[in-house]
Amino acid sequence: MKAWGIFLLLLCLQAITYAVIGESQTCPAENVGKCDDSDWEGEFFPGINKIKYEGPSSKNPLSFKWYNAEEEILGKKMKDWFRFSVAFWHTFRGTGADPFGAPTKYWPWEDGTNSLKMAKRRMRANFEFINKLGVDWWCFHDRDIAPDGETLEEANANLDEVVALAKELQMQSKKKVLWGTAQLFMHPRYMHGAATRYAIRPVHDFLILIGFMSHKINWFYSSELGVYAYAAAQVKKALEVTHYLEGENYVFWGGREGYQSLLNTDMERELNHLARFFEAAVAYKKKIGFNGTLLIEPKPQEPTKHQYDWDAATTANFLRKYGLIGEFKLNIECNHATLSGHSCHHELETARINGLLGNIDANTGDPQVGWDTDQFLVDIQEATMIMLSVIRNGGIAPGGFNFDAKLRRESTDVEDLFIAHIIGMDTMARGLRNAATLIEDGTLAELVRKRYQSFDTEIGAQIEAGKADFDFLEKKAKEWGEPKVASAKQELAEMILQSAL
Amino acid sequence: MKAWGIFLLLLCLQAITYAVIGESQTCPAENVGKCDDSDWEGEFFPGINKIKYEGPSSKNPLSFKWYNAEEEILGKKMKDWFRFSVAFWHTFRGTGADPFGAPTKYWPWEDGTNSLKMAKRRMRANFEFINKLGVDWWCFHDRDIAPDGETLEEANANLDEVVALAKELQMQSKKKVLWGTAQLFMHPRYMHGAATRYAIRPVHDFLILIGFMSHKINWFYSSELGVYAYAAAQVKKALEVTHYLEGENYVFWGGREGYQSLLNTDMERELNHLARFFEAAVAYKKKIGFNGTLLIEPKPQEPTKHQYDWDAATTANFLRKYGLIGEFKLNIECNHATLSGHSCHHELETARINGLLGNIDANTGDPQVGWDTDQFLVDIQEATMIMLSVIRNGGIAPGGFNFDAKLRRESTDVEDLFIAHIIGMDTMARGLRNAATLIEDGTLAELVRKRYQSFDTEIGAQIEAGKADFDFLEKKAKEWGEPKVASAKQELAEMILQSAL
Amino acid sequence: MKAWGIFLLLLCLQAITYAVIGESQTCPAENVGKCDDSDWEGEFFPGINKIKYEGPSSKNPLSFKWYNAEEEILGKKMKDWFRFSVAFWHTFRGTGADPFGAPTKYWPWEDGTNSLKMAKRRMRANFEFINKLGVDWWCFHDRDIAPDGETLEEANANLDEVVALAKELQMQSKKKVLWGTAQLFMHPRYMHGAATRYAIRPVHDFLILIGFMSHKINWFYSSELGVYAYAAAQVKKALEVTHYLEGENYVFWGGREGYQSLLNTDMERELNHLARFFEAAVAYKKKIGFNGTLLIEPKPQEPTKHQYDWDAATTANFLRKYGLIGEFKLNIECNHATLSGHSCHHELETARINGLLGNIDANTGDPQVGWDTDQFLVDIQEATMIMLSVIRNGGIAPGGFNFDAKLRRESTDVEDLFIAHIIGMDTMARGLRNAATLIEDGTLAELVRKRYQSFDTEIGAQIEAGKADFDFLEKKAKEWGEPKVASAKQELAEMILQSAL
Amino acid sequence: MKAWGIFLLLLCLQAITYAVIGESQTCPAENVGKCDDSDWEGEFFPGINKIKYEGPSSKNPLSFKWYNAEEEILGKKMKDWFRFSVAFWHTFRGTGADPFGAPTKYWPWEDGTNSLKMAKRRMRANFEFINKLGVDWWCFHDRDIAPDGETLEEANANLDEVVALAKELQMQSKKKVLWGTAQLFMHPRYMHGAATRYAIRPVHDFLILIGFMSHKINWFYSSELGVYAYAAAQVKKALEVTHYLEGENYVFWGGREGYQSLLNTDMERELNHLARFFEAAVAYKKKIGFNGTLLIEPKPQEPTKHQYDWDAATTANFLRKYGLIGEFKLNIECNHATLSGHSCHHELETARINGLLGNIDANTGDPQVGWDTDQFLVDIQEATMIMLSVIRNGGIAPGGFNFDAKLRRESTDVEDLFIAHIIGMDTMARGLRNAATLIEDGTLAELVRKRYQSFDTEIGAQIEAGKADFDFLEKKAKEWGEPKVASAKQELAEMILQSAL
Repeated sequence: MKAWGIFLLLLCLQAITYAVIGESQTCPAENVGKCDDSDWEGEFFPGINKIKYEGPSSKNPLSFKWYNAEEEILGKKMKDWFRFSVAFWHTFRGTGADPFGAPTKYWPWEDGTNSLKMAKRRMRANFEFINKLGVDWWCFHDRDIAPDGETLEEANANLDEVVALAKELQMQSKKKVLWGTAQLFMHPRYMHGAATRYAIRPVHDFLILIGFMSHKINWFYSSELGVYAYAAAQVKKALEVTHYLEGENYVFWGGREGYQSLLNTDMERELNHLARFFEAAVAYKKKIGFNGTLLIEPKPQEPTKHQYDWDAATTANFLRKYGLIGEFKLNIECNHATLSGHSCHHELETARINGLLGNIDANTGDPQVGWDTDQFLVDIQEATMIMLSVIRNGGIAPGGFNFDAKLRRESTDVEDLFIAHIIGMDTMARGLRNAATLIEDGTLAELVRKRYQSFDTEIGAQIEAGKADFDFLEKKAKEWGEPKVASAKQELAEMILQSAL
Repeated sequence: MKAWGIFLLLLCLQAITYAVIGESQTCPAENVGKCDDSDWEGEFFPGINKIKYEGPSSKNPLSFKWYNAEEEILGKKMKDWFRFSVAFWHTFRGTGADPFGAPTKYWPWEDGTNSLKMAKRRMRANFEFINKLGVDWWCFHDRDIAPDGETLEEANANLDEVVALAKELQMQSKKKVLWGTAQLFMHPRYMHGAATRYAIRPVHDFLILIGFMSHKINWFYSSELGVYAYAAAQVKKALEVTHYLEGENYVFWGGREGYQSLLNTDMERELNHLARFFEAAVAYKKKIGFNGTLLIEPKPQEPTKHQYDWDAATTANFLRKYGLIGEFKLNIECNHATLSGHSCHHELETARINGLLGNIDANTGDPQVGWDTDQFLVDIQEATMIMLSVIRNGGIAPGGFNFDAKLRRESTDVEDLFIAHIIGMDTMARGLRNAATLIEDGTLAELVRKRYQSFDTEIGAQIEAGKADFDFLEKKAKEWGEPKVASAKQELAEMILQSAL
Repeated sequence: MKAWGIFLLLLCLQAITYAVIGESQTCPAENVGKCDDSDWEGEFFPGINKIKYEGPSSKNPLSFKWYNAEEEILGKKMKDWFRFSVAFWHTFRGTGADPFGAPTKYWPWEDGTNSLKMAKRRMRANFEFINKLGVDWWCFHDRDIAPDGETLEEANANLDEVVALAKELQMQSKKKVLWGTAQLFMHPRYMHGAATRYAIRPVHDFLILIGFMSHKINWFYSSELGVYAYAAAQVKKALEVTHYLEGENYVFWGGREGYQSLLNTDMERELNHLARFFEAAVAYKKKIGFNGTLLIEPKPQEPTKHQYDWDAATTANFLRKYGLIGEFKLNIECNHATLSGHSCHHELETARINGLLGNIDANTGDPQVGWDTDQFLVDIQEATMIMLSVIRNGGIAPGGFNFDAKLRRESTDVEDLFIAHIIGMDTMARGLRNAATLIEDGTLAELVRKRYQSFDTEIGAQIEAGKADFDFLEKKAKEWGEPKVASAKQELAEMILQSAL
Repeated sequence: MKAWGIFLLLLCLQAITYAVIGESQTCPAENVGKCDDSDWEGEFFPGINKIKYEGPSSKNPLSFKWYNAEEEILGKKMKDWFRFSVAFWHTFRGTGADPFGAPTKYWPWEDGTNSLKMAKRRMRANFEFINKLGVDWWCFHDRDIAPDGETLEEANANLDEVVALAKELQMQSKKKVLWGTAQLFMHPRYMHGAATRYAIRPVHDFLILIGFMSHKINWFYSSELGVYAYAAAQVKKALEVTHYLEGENYVFWGGREGYQSLLNTDMERELNHLARFFEAAVAYKKKIGFNGTLLIEPKPQEPTKHQYDWDAATTANFLRKYGLIGEFKLNIECNHATLSGHSCHHELETARINGLLGNIDANTGDPQVGWDTDQFLVDIQEATMIMLSVIRNGGIAPGGFNFDAKLRRESTDVEDLFIAHIIGMDTMARGLRNAATLIEDGTLAELVRKRYQSFDTEIGAQIEAGKADFDFLEKKAKEWGEPKVASAKQELAEMILQSAL
């Protein structure tokens, strides 16, 4: 009875976002016999061959028109500019569920369970997918690649088993983890955040309320440090696993590290806790010899009303305040950028200027929609701006471009998984080509340089060196009289940009 | 094997938004023996008595401080101004799940299933709840009060069984349905909308793609009218059931009647289909002698990027275009109002002016958040504005105030269900009291009247009657010379408003 | 003394948005002698020749790379698809002022006054500009092309004098007015709106306030119909002038027809007044034999908090409610579309579906900014979507594409006026070329058609004809069982779109 | 001729935002003789006496109902909690102009000029106003209290003359400056920003454009450091003047320190310049012995698309990055807070937690509007939240509450100036009273404290001290098992809050 209860528990937990629906898909007819076999080596995508570059005139949806992995642009291969990565959770655990709807995806390799066997088969599908797509990297959340457990020990054991397979598949295919992370937001234990607030256990399941003003309050009598500790244990394991899988980065996304209402929140104390948590993570990373970059992924809100890592500047302030500035970089996600009121290009530049540009979650939102849609980016102009930043940054390694993007709920064919990634890669490739054209042409850079050229004069240099005080400047202002100002030529800059598209 | 698959199907479908978690709650220890008993008559809320009015000085959270059901305000009892209703789906099927998290609610009466037995016990809990809260109405979605079925017939049979119990409980308690509706957005069959777009069945589970430009496309060979028909059948049944339960209204919320992208959408054809669907609903309503009001609930977006019933004015345009203007009214939801860029007051006034104010979904959103948070409204000033509209409308009957509002995900005590409804009712009650003060005082109305008083002159009346042409007006303009304009006194109006709060 | 006062009045009124600054520019050195001469026939743009099409490889900013006026696309010349128009107010009266800053433009033909002489010279500059740009149409506001007067009579006389010159210049150059309008928002007399609310004159300049609750209010004793009449007289004249200049359309933009606060507003009465005003305009149009289209330009807000013509659907509802639906079309502005929460494409489609697509104000906003920036549209993808709608509409005539767009405040070179219009025209031209490619290819249309193909079956046709009632549909639903739904292929649609860019 | 040109220049510059209209107001009949007299000592507000506290039942709009200056709340006089200040620019230079409209205010003391005489009379009006309102502080922009000059020297001389009068009036009335600032955004010289970008002078008024890709660009040959120097000189003077007027703070609002487009901007270099400018300001402040606080006022955008001082966290990051963190505090404006996507309360808390809460610009925006409306705050609940932060901060001194708020454009009676400030002060006073009630009651604080009480245990303290590493925490997590989490009681917190309103 108990085992069955646990089974149900796991199944239903999964169902929330990943579930597959009903018997018809527990094992499709053509796969009979394979569904019970976690060693099933595919083919999971039988009609699809390795995606090739066919050039812009190709009409084949399953080909690249612009992304040509080995082609050199500005002295570097395209694949090395991008270091594209597939996000395991969206591509293999995304179900199409939304707050108003049940899952819509029926992938033929799924058997309707979240068993270890299923987790392994799914991992094989992942490797077939990235092989066929021609991508060298993948990213994962711990709880998405392996089933959770009744205990931490059981969860860790599950994780180990799947990770062992992943390691093996990596070696066969020469693929690596771009980054790993611990998923600290789905389980109800994390509803108040993982690293910021302690959970409190009520006395009774049903509280007896007393007057809330005149009487002493005794809603709670005891409390738990358990959530903080549990989160730490989970991150510890995820760091180890990422290290084992040769991950080059590790990401923190604090989805629930924030508040729903300031009325019941002590923001200062929560931020202190978050800093302590990060400090411990840094120490542990060093202890185990993990040399990958630690990344924080800013997001303004959703699921919380306000997330502490609102945007790049907010996160930079946090890192500086707590003396963590040298230990972390940022993972900039384009959809998070626009949700925080900035363009993606702005967030990339802000990160870059603060020395914090570490990785890009390549996706986009809908400009008329106020939540995270995680769409594949298809806007060539935006891609061009992104690549201008990346080139200015000297590339993005050891980070990369992770497709933290999902199929629309209504896109339900297996081939849609390929189509979406191909258009995402082609769009970025067009962006790179355009950016290279702009840089080689040089006109746009020259237009910008001219706007600041007076800083290259003697007095300009004096100011930039911090040697021009107000007395001196006032003297100059009087001497020079009314300054003349020139056109900013924004429309011309836009014309130059468009000429490269 | 198949039965088990179906069971899983149903269970997991449920799990997405309603699931309870694991064995520990399949039947709490204190309820052993009762969990198997759908006739379990409670008490589901053992420590809580009927909520009483104790006045503003009360410190008891489980009392009303402002809502006094029988008290007369402006010649009408408070309960008759509001006709408060509890929304079954949020209060009894809300789980706290969000796009990033699993359910968080562990109600003691739940056994972890979505069985018929469970549905009936839940219905008893609903009646105990509204009885204790002192509310006379409730609202429902068909698929939330009863389990779905493998077939339409089975689903209808399930519904009938639960509805029979509800009818019985209604008779015992003198409660009634404020409105019913069919839930046409959760099941994957409705992913493209229910009444607007036909579903299309692919030839193979896995499509062979061919060049998308030069070759003939044959992705699809067949198609189904099934979704449209299925939705019609479901609405038909929900209308019948609402009628049977003496519902005074029936609501259409077209959550997925909209689009995710105009690129793959024929908006005109979809709007035509929606109109046909509404026409058929009107005809059926008349056929069965249902005299309740049909209501459309505008919402701008979410889950779709654009929903066809964007706001009150958009919906009014739709109704006028298709000759349906006399057959429907609107159900204005405050959170939907703000998501569409308007204040709640604006949407109420727009509905009222168009003769369409039918019901209010009393909730609110977070002004800094871009999605539907469905919070209980606690803003006294907004409540006052809402009540000014309702009083101007002569009340809201046969509609009412339905609490289409949910506990925050992190509010997990059973008592929170009461607290939330109480603060929601008290806030509206304060709004009514304040609005009455303003109206009895008369100053604000006088300020407004004065701004338009020149229309009460002869020439003003001529203009209002459409009898002043441009020649006449030009003559007057020349005669009168430069007009003088007076202060709009907005700050004074705000001062007057605040004096009543 | 008085004349001087008036002079100051006019000068300062102008200064607010149009003014040029100080003596240094009253007449630039190179123009000495010409500044006093309203017959000065230019050259106003001496270094700039007629803009020519040079093709995509041209590096000349003062050439078209994509817009080739005489080239045929889908059977129509490019110039006939677009019917481009220059907006006199932005191009010749825009000063670069914003709420935080003084004017920044110093056009060499300006003499620092708003005299009749200056107005005429400016009109000559306008014609030189559209000639050199190769545009056949222009649009105007009455108060921008000619100085206001102390009286209506004087204002009209000023207008007549400038219009006579414009007529002459039109005949010489074969140019025409695309649309005219009356500017009813700048003058303080219109601060409460022009056609919606009567102005009220205070008793004293300084009011004696009495208790606002207990005492009778007598803030106002008299009132004026003057504003409504004045607005009518101004529109009457603008209609006549537009007619005289062979205008093909006339636009109403109700910038102040809306409210700042519902607290002091009677929205219903205001909407009634607006309808009466429009009725009178329709009657007058017919009386004078003006056959041009009357257009309403929706905008959600700014300067008011809520404008009555919020968006296309809201305006359509207004027109239907008041029986004006056959008499007006809409002028869709892209920046207004995005401010109202929609894409430009959505607004165009909504207008088209309602039979109301009359004209396009071709501009764009900043997606991260909450006010009207009126930028030149440079987004190729958006331009492509716009042209898909226009082609579907069979073109836009007798409307056109009016560049209701302005230089950035910081773009201060005369050449920037050309550059901005050129990039605006080239972007639309790329949009047209891309849209034609998509249409000729046919894949995208086919993808959409397939999604609705079941409506071409017998039962589908029955539904579309309104002949399928709920009984019939329920029967079918039971007969057919669970419907299968196909992928919406949004990513594929995006891939097809991008392949044409 | 030249003098007249200058006069016009000044007049029109003023006109843009301040102008009064036409002769009728150059000197109203009742003031004849006084208009030429800068020593005119009023009464400027003849019918209005000193505003008194009359309590909540008063119906007199010109009385306080809640603000009772001398009353003690939580051990401090109300006037000392608030240190209310009137903003000279809005109250005395605001004209009601907006981007679509001319000025609407006709104050009787204005003579239609921006002469020194007028500036002095206006200053007398300011002191009469704050005396009658019972406010002890005022704030100013340099260019608003005195006319600009043809040269810096002339502008400074004008400023000195007005400031001398202000000093005299301050001594008579015991009033002081809360903060001063230099207005660096109105003049066209500042169109690209004051401290961030050098201006560049074009070779010719009309540039000859050459191919922008293949040819060398030579649009510009020379450049100016003038703008940076001019801004420095203006800030230098404003600091001196603020010091002379016993100002307790000095504010920097970088309205144009930001960008319109990243395409033509070098954000990094601009931020460096801004830092150099602030360093020089700090040095100069110390040099002259000014002990007031330097404040930066964050604003996300408007007039620029992106302002570098986006919000509190962004500004804190800037200060930390450039080592300026000890030298500045923040001036939090509520309307800027909401424009940046935060609640006012959030920005206050963020500033407080970073040790940066220096001053509050007490205003509010319209939640449905995307630009700065600078309304007087009338929301009691928001005021309560604000005061909770202020009390937690131990008060706001040496800062205060500055009414950076303006009358609606349509509020044109002199009395409206009083009404608006009164309702603004009363609202804050209600906020203070409510906050005190909540604090004295203690329930809300207790609810919050309980949520974090496990940090007061031994292990909690260990974590807070940074002494709990991942190994230790993992051990605990395994030991403790699945943590239990309690309800966040948000609705109860809202109920408690509302009970105090």
